[in-house]
Amino acid sequence: MLEKYFLVLPASSDEMEFSNALQKAMRYSLLSGGKRLRPILCIASFEAVGGRGEGIYPFACAIEMIHTYSLIHDDLPAIDNDDYRRGKPTCHKVFGEAIGILAGDALLTEAFKWMTDPFSNDARVVLEIINEVAQAAGILGMISGQVLDIQSEGKRVDLPTLQSIHTLKTGALIRASVRAGVKLGGGSDEIIRAFTHYGEKIGLAFQVVDDILNVEGNRERLGKNIGSDLSRRKATYPSVVGLEESKKRAEELIESAIDALSSFGPEAEPLRGIARFIVARDY
Amino acid sequence: MLEKYFLVLPASSDEMEFSNALQKAMRYSLLSGGKRLRPILCIASFEAVGGRGEGIYPFACAIEMIHTYSLIHDDLPAIDNDDYRRGKPTCHKVFGEAIGILAGDALLTEAFKWMTDPFSNDARVVLEIINEVAQAAGILGMISGQVLDIQSEGKRVDLPTLQSIHTLKTGALIRASVRAGVKLGGGSDEIIRAFTHYGEKIGLAFQVVDDILNVEGNRERLGKNIGSDLSRRKATYPSVVGLEESKKRAEELIESAIDALSSFGPEAEPLRGIARFIVARDY
Repeated sequence: MLEKYFLVLPASSDEMEFSNALQKAMRYSLLSGGKRLRPILCIASFEAVGGRGEGIYPFACAIEMIHTYSLIHDDLPAIDNDDYRRGKPTCHKVFGEAIGILAGDALLTEAFKWMTDPFSNDARVVLEIINEVAQAAGILGMISGQVLDIQSEGKRVDLPTLQSIHTLKTGALIRASVRAGVKLGGGSDEIIRAFTHYGEKIGLAFQVVDDILNVEGNRERLGKNIGSDLSRRKATYPSVVGLEESKKRAEELIESAIDALSSFGPEAEPLRGIARFIVARDY
Repeated sequence: MLEKYFLVLPASSDEMEFSNALQKAMRYSLLSGGKRLRPILCIASFEAVGGRGEGIYPFACAIEMIHTYSLIHDDLPAIDNDDYRRGKPTCHKVFGEAIGILAGDALLTEAFKWMTDPFSNDARVVLEIINEVAQAAGILGMISGQVLDIQSEGKRVDLPTLQSIHTLKTGALIRASVRAGVKLGGGSDEIIRAFTHYGEKIGLAFQVVDDILNVEGNRERLGKNIGSDLSRRKATYPSVVGLEESKKRAEELIESAIDALSSFGPEAEPLRGIARFIVARDY
């Protein structure tokens, strides 16, 4: 469904032929698969609170574009120096470092262009959502998480710090995906609170499971190297609280997330399913 | 004046202490001087059409943040590999490549957060401006200009291609600075057209003069190396049409820019002054 939107990106014109490499790199990373967790969460949250129509799609796509840009930049030699992502060579391995950096920049910029495209949504709500997405992606969210992560490599990290890293690096944007959907869908403050709790818990669970899979996952299924956290001496849940305790925590977080939706009926079933998927997944 | 705004960026909190390097890098590049051409243009355009109050500042600052992020990323080893900028070591030379990349990302992201901060501006107009700024900074603007520029190094480039590079790489954001000011200031469509013409002409003139200064400018005044375009075999106005013809064109462009404002009185005098400064500047 989302592919329809991703594929129209970016518009082709004569001038743009020169920058073909940029477009190719953007599409390569954006369309290389992945779980599409954030856009799915965004749409499922929107629909769970009664939102209808296609007004949510630009936001769902934009958040996936922000996520993809962050992966491209994180994989760069100067940061995580990863060669594989989603089972394919990373963006800079295929297109070179310069195009990798610029493709990431372009995806981030396009995300904001998409969110401000004239749609029939309420302009004030749209501004509020964009502000929140930018906050989640920026210095009070994802980017700070990445900096903390880099600075913690090889250091002994305690649980609160690890949680901070996870909350900022992964949790903030997942939380924003849910909240963007609910807000655009017209959810009340009370509903926003319940969904925010859900979003926070699954965000943390997602990262705990990611850490677990990096220890005992299957390289083929994951499409990236296993054990890289350990060799890089990254702070992870298994390294701080142990593998069994990590699994227990992931289960508890998912239960808490599902509990937050207890006052909702079948309309929230997709969100419950996503929560269960997060802890059961093997990729 | 703008410093007041830049200095509150970014908010400090306990969590943020970890990411001190990020904040320092952002402030280092943002506050390292520069001409502040884009924010000044934005504010002068706003005021020239009768805009009053501080509602324009977040946009003026945001555009300068976008400009600064583009400089940080362009200076990276994988792109232009520049060691000096505005007379000081480039961001990645001081803070390392990882922080350089992330500080650029953070400035770009913050720019969109700032523009969506709740202000008393009309939400629909704000969305329109952000959309236009994102377009000017993205794959139909600045980033494509940078890609074209990289791809043209060492190649024989004709005048139309050179103009495309300049229009995309520098012109688009300068144009957007002017248009953002006029739109937020409430200028009519006719006024927007006149100011757009002004913005396009000074944008092109700015880059022509930049090229000229790279040939015969003063390293101390410019704060960056002279002759770097030549040694990198970059396409420039002097290399394509010659030095004298370049100077003539810069003058003509500025005249045309000032002409576009002929139906305005003293309220447009700052904009005329900026145009004259652009061609007379030695830095």
